Amino acid sequence: MMKVVVYVRLKDSVLDPQGKAVSGGLRNLGFAEVTDVKVGKMIELYMDDATATENLKERVGDMCQKLLVNTVIEEFRFEVVG
Amino acid sequence: MMKVVVYVRLKDSVLDPQGKAVSGGLRNLGFAEVTDVKVGKMIELYMDDATATENLKERVGDMCQKLLVNTVIEEFRFEVVG
Repeated sequence: MMKVVVYVRLKDSVLDPQGKAVSGGLRNLGFAEVTDVKVGKMIELYMDDATATENLKERVGDMCQKLLVNTVIEEFRFEVVG
Repeated sequence: MMKVVVYVRLKDSVLDPQGKAVSGGLRNLGFAEVTDVKVGKMIELYMDDATATENLKERVGDMCQKLLVNTVIEEFRFEVVG
């Protein structure tokens, strides 16, 4: 079993209302040191070893472009974990 | 500005309907090598240097316990990035 983890985050220029809400919540709980929060996704992909080896990085890039990431407002990186 | 990244994922024993949906979607797009998908959160915390240094790890652990993580069904780890 091959595992790849994709990290997706909003581009810095994009407003993050969810992050603002979490940031406000943390400050209400007394964590005044928090100045900003950004909420993104961590997607773990599990793949079959046999079929996953050739051009793995290209395929994962394709998966991100086609489904996992909204490339207009999001950026991503991924790492092959094992 | 101090930055800490929190990685939150569902515990392995918990069903992940969102992951199942993404997994099905990828296979429909022709990525047959994908056997399973787990969707988690990546939360970037930005903190004020002056107030954030003492017991930073303890404070971030507290933030996770109190707001960022549902510890019944989720597990988390975090790293101080800079």
